Amino acid sequence: MAIPAPHPAEPGYDAIRDAAERIAAEARRTPLLESPLLNARLGGRLLVKAEPLQRTGSFKFRGAYNRISRLDAAERRRGVVAFSSGNHAQGVAAAAALVGAPAVIVMPSDAPAIKVANTRAYGAEVVSYDRLREDREEIGRRICAERGSILVPPYDDPHVIAGQGTVGLEIAAQAREMGVRLDAVAACASGGGLVAGIALALERESPGTEVHVCEPAGFDDHARSLAAGRRLANAPGASSICDALLATMPGEITFPVNARLLRGGIAVGDDEVLAAIGVAFRDLKLVVEPGGAVALAAALAGRLPVAGRCVAVVCSGGNVDPAIFARALATT
Amino acid sequence: MAIPAPHPAEPGYDAIRDAAERIAAEARRTPLLESPLLNARLGGRLLVKAEPLQRTGSFKFRGAYNRISRLDAAERRRGVVAFSSGNHAQGVAAAAALVGAPAVIVMPSDAPAIKVANTRAYGAEVVSYDRLREDREEIGRRICAERGSILVPPYDDPHVIAGQGTVGLEIAAQAREMGVRLDAVAACASGGGLVAGIALALERESPGTEVHVCEPAGFDDHARSLAAGRRLANAPGASSICDALLATMPGEITFPVNARLLRGGIAVGDDEVLAAIGVAFRDLKLVVEPGGAVALAAALAGRLPVAGRCVAVVCSGGNVDPAIFARALATT
Repeated sequence: MAIPAPHPAEPGYDAIRDAAERIAAEARRTPLLESPLLNARLGGRLLVKAEPLQRTGSFKFRGAYNRISRLDAAERRRGVVAFSSGNHAQGVAAAAALVGAPAVIVMPSDAPAIKVANTRAYGAEVVSYDRLREDREEIGRRICAERGSILVPPYDDPHVIAGQGTVGLEIAAQAREMGVRLDAVAACASGGGLVAGIALALERESPGTEVHVCEPAGFDDHARSLAAGRRLANAPGASSICDALLATMPGEITFPVNARLLRGGIAVGDDEVLAAIGVAFRDLKLVVEPGGAVALAAALAGRLPVAGRCVAVVCSGGNVDPAIFARALATT
Repeated sequence: MAIPAPHPAEPGYDAIRDAAERIAAEARRTPLLESPLLNARLGGRLLVKAEPLQRTGSFKFRGAYNRISRLDAAERRRGVVAFSSGNHAQGVAAAAALVGAPAVIVMPSDAPAIKVANTRAYGAEVVSYDRLREDREEIGRRICAERGSILVPPYDDPHVIAGQGTVGLEIAAQAREMGVRLDAVAACASGGGLVAGIALALERESPGTEVHVCEPAGFDDHARSLAAGRRLANAPGASSICDALLATMPGEITFPVNARLLRGGIAVGDDEVLAAIGVAFRDLKLVVEPGGAVALAAALAGRLPVAGRCVAVVCSGGNVDPAIFARALATT
């Protein structure tokens, strides 16, 4: 199968190292958790990168701050715009506040209440849209044109991808500190920026470690695109509790990276995601949101084998409304 | 008010440093979390020591492993006994398993299901008793006499107190790494081993930092004993959702330490505890059990002032049954 040519804007390994230095003072080095009881049940070693403990409750702060902290004084005055279901929104809002730039966030009207409330609490202006009828990118670009603001894309931006790649640098360093060799690493994807950044980091830091992408059933555009060798969109009409992972197709910059470096894609169902949130509650004491739990769900459901191996999964965020979390508690 | 004389078995600062070295390979250095949104609401800086992320889901592993790893070969063969509502149980069970010693745990019949199940999963034998009618210490001592086992007390043991004191060493080191000076540190107490260990560590590491003890209303034996200058028991018949904090009076070794070093005691109600669990869920993405949330509850309820200060609270454990956690979610 042909691998698509790299996008000219693809970030290199050095850009990820540079991002790590840039975000160090504001972002957290999140822990790599594990549970001996869970390991015993799985017959292997499962390490969980705890990005719910990241500033703003998800990995998205990394990429947003890496991009927004590079704005010059005039750009900061005109501010930033982002479209997001909520985690990128909070990352952009918090990063913009740190550098003193106004932020407008275009959010779907059905985004979780906690994500909308936090985005406003960080000081951003929220503009709602109908996810099924309106085009968020078009709304974002119109606001940029009106106000002269800078658009901060959720994944198709080299600084954003490099920022998310710092998750991969940390996983590799933490595994070395623990004295373990990683057989596989898995992360979720909406547009694919997180898993692309991780794959670029591990290509240098941990060659030989498989990298997998995990997605909700019905939104497995990366898995199908990887199999086809070209970007395919999700069929319209699917639904999932994973509100963070509903982008319609892989990114233009991210897809060639992922096509070159990923081992493949794994899709998980809502029930498996709820069960994974329950396991994170019981065995890891970590609050994980549905979209943040797909890689853990893939490991627990046995589709990402852990037995006899050492596998790291990224739990990418924890911004979950109490009602959904209560459903997950009922599975424990 | 007279300060009671130190107990001859009181551990010194060097014993805590020694415990830190001993447990380093098996225990985790848990993160000191914070939420910018929560800080903004409180008008100060609140740091949260995340012991739910400790091995076995609470700080208790520290003291248990510091004690049990010192057993000689003959003692390991005869095994250990502990009486515990659940967190010390899990700490002892896991520590015993690591050194290859059998463990018998005497647990109240109304202990949370997750604590009983995990204690068994670590390989311990569980003996149930009626918390209101039977004496757990007597049951534990009888089993020790029958089997020649070593009793691992939950707090009145110098190695156990020194192990819990490593929480204080880490808080002081993490605050230095963050470049902050701690105005106050607060931790919960059942028998007082955790807060005594922390106070002994901070006396050397961070002199000038106030140390407070937090307890459930109706179980504020430390607060009343500190005020009276002598150990007082709780009145019988009180109830609390804080299953981990129901010991009837301060310990013999711990109380003189706490009387000498603590600023005072704060009691919080069940509703305040449930609200604190909800804040930890929403703002910190951390699963905290009722007994683990009392210090956080004291800060959030304003009885441990945070405004204009930098205050660290210990969230001491996260082993909570889903039904209780669901009640806390309803407060968010």
